Amino acid sequence: MSIGANLVAVVEQPLLTYEGVHDARDRIAGRVLQTPVVRSEELDRVAGARLWLKAENLQRGGSFKMRGALLAVERLVAAGSRGVVAQSTGNHAIAVALAAAQHRLPAVLVLPVDAAPTKVRRIREAGAEVLQAGTTLAERIAVLEEVRHTRGYDEIDPYQNLDVVAGQGTATADLLHQVEAAGGRLDAVVLPVGGGSALAGACLATAGQGIDVHGAEPAAVPALTAALRAGGPVTVDVRPTLADGLRPDRIGQLPYDLAHDAVAGVFTLEESAIAEALRLVLVHARLLIEPAAATAVAGALRLAAEGRARDIGVLVSGGNVETSLVASLLDPQGV
Amino acid sequence: MSIGANLVAVVEQPLLTYEGVHDARDRIAGRVLQTPVVRSEELDRVAGARLWLKAENLQRGGSFKMRGALLAVERLVAAGSRGVVAQSTGNHAIAVALAAAQHRLPAVLVLPVDAAPTKVRRIREAGAEVLQAGTTLAERIAVLEEVRHTRGYDEIDPYQNLDVVAGQGTATADLLHQVEAAGGRLDAVVLPVGGGSALAGACLATAGQGIDVHGAEPAAVPALTAALRAGGPVTVDVRPTLADGLRPDRIGQLPYDLAHDAVAGVFTLEESAIAEALRLVLVHARLLIEPAAATAVAGALRLAAEGRARDIGVLVSGGNVETSLVASLLDPQGV
Repeated sequence: MSIGANLVAVVEQPLLTYEGVHDARDRIAGRVLQTPVVRSEELDRVAGARLWLKAENLQRGGSFKMRGALLAVERLVAAGSRGVVAQSTGNHAIAVALAAAQHRLPAVLVLPVDAAPTKVRRIREAGAEVLQAGTTLAERIAVLEEVRHTRGYDEIDPYQNLDVVAGQGTATADLLHQVEAAGGRLDAVVLPVGGGSALAGACLATAGQGIDVHGAEPAAVPALTAALRAGGPVTVDVRPTLADGLRPDRIGQLPYDLAHDAVAGVFTLEESAIAEALRLVLVHARLLIEPAAATAVAGALRLAAEGRARDIGVLVSGGNVETSLVASLLDPQGV
Repeated sequence: MSIGANLVAVVEQPLLTYEGVHDARDRIAGRVLQTPVVRSEELDRVAGARLWLKAENLQRGGSFKMRGALLAVERLVAAGSRGVVAQSTGNHAIAVALAAAQHRLPAVLVLPVDAAPTKVRRIREAGAEVLQAGTTLAERIAVLEEVRHTRGYDEIDPYQNLDVVAGQGTATADLLHQVEAAGGRLDAVVLPVGGGSALAGACLATAGQGIDVHGAEPAAVPALTAALRAGGPVTVDVRPTLADGLRPDRIGQLPYDLAHDAVAGVFTLEESAIAEALRLVLVHARLLIEPAAATAVAGALRLAAEGRARDIGVLVSGGNVETSLVASLLDPQGV
């Protein structure tokens, strides 16, 4: 299928518009937390710009993925679904497990074998079944397909599902609303990029408002950079990264279609920059964030250093992080 | 002076009333951050109650002390002050330094020799002068008196100043307002107790609302427990505590007068309970808090375990903590 054909399909989906994201925001109001936008004078001093941190690490389930999962599960429940299955590096799986539990719907989640133990634990606590398979997207999808066919469960794809993409966009829509309410005005937003749903949602939420949208991904998994260069999603070789939430080795087609013309650019961050951003946010903004979120903060620090924006919104996507990792980052003898 | 005479003086101060705290709230609106009240389903599960965390660790200067300091400094500036001096274990000093800097007023802060290095650094970064003297309140006061006499600076006492006590009460007033806006209703609030200003402010802010006010102090520094037993402030022997912000070895007379009849009780917390509360809030609520704030959380956990309250507000008083301490608390081989 050509990109052109996909774009037509996208445009025809009312959910995948600025208005669609705002409708989604109304649909989940009161069922997700109104997380704060955190400012820190000390962090701003380090950055040399004003950072507006949308603290979705404080969201239900510990990440912004709760937004899309709630919308997707609700639509499936209304359609009479007998169960749901999803693959994820962790946060989408936690969110689907919690949303399914709320509707007493069975859920199976497929994670990589090297998923963060904290994330696996949270899924099981929500009462869902966890299957772990390989380390690549393709390996997880193979297991997911089997569950789908043998049990007749409905898939909730983290990148292709329309409710999910629109739902993830509500985090950016909330951010813009909260910044405006505080008398501010963003020049740019920075989103962490795994499969691309946060970025795509942000492109919808900022449409027509003159706000630059930047992606941030680990240099170890440059899936967006590679896709933009190739003119479409490609599978990239991955190196190990702290940012377990950003390990998908390929951007989703739908996020790519929505974002590739709209994004201002993408930052690729080294592991040391991700670790330093996590530490800076913990010490100065007093928020515990996971490395995926720190990747976006590191991108924002880069954008600020380049002098390209004064007011930068950052999607602090989640806070599900191993305490041993945090301890090692805080310890001068550590990482 | 008898307690009776003090009470008369207190009652005559319009600041030190429910209305006075609300007036103070209006005076500082827009100049302190509207910090969020953070909820965590995971923390609630651990607690067996609903905890409403007033996240003043996200406040300017990293603690709720900014509130009282702003009010006190402004009144002195209006009166033509040439400079201010204050003694503190740290957070009041940071707050006074920042408030004075905002008005380009010279400030001298007197801290104990074992003050948290992070706190000393923040005061110096604000451009104020730091003097370190002994470890007891009496030693700090001796140095403060000398500065006051030799330089003609005005003292901002952390426990006796009316603006400070009313200002600290605005944190609890905000908490009640935010819980109500979220459709909740508190049975109790828990405040950390050092010199007593947070507790006294909370007694004013909750007056006549049927909300129990509890203090929480380290077992290592049982100054409120001793004062309640003795019928007035007494100097206690102190043991070392993680809660550097709660080291004052004597409750202030004014806070005692305001609080002693109004408080429902005081929890004395062992070091292990304080450390565990800090870790729980970091992992489950994703907030970095200092041990003084963790002491209040530990008190709330105790209150919940006793089954005496379903909805508990906690003043998470600050987030100025040494990263090495946090690392050791997160490390299973650590503290």
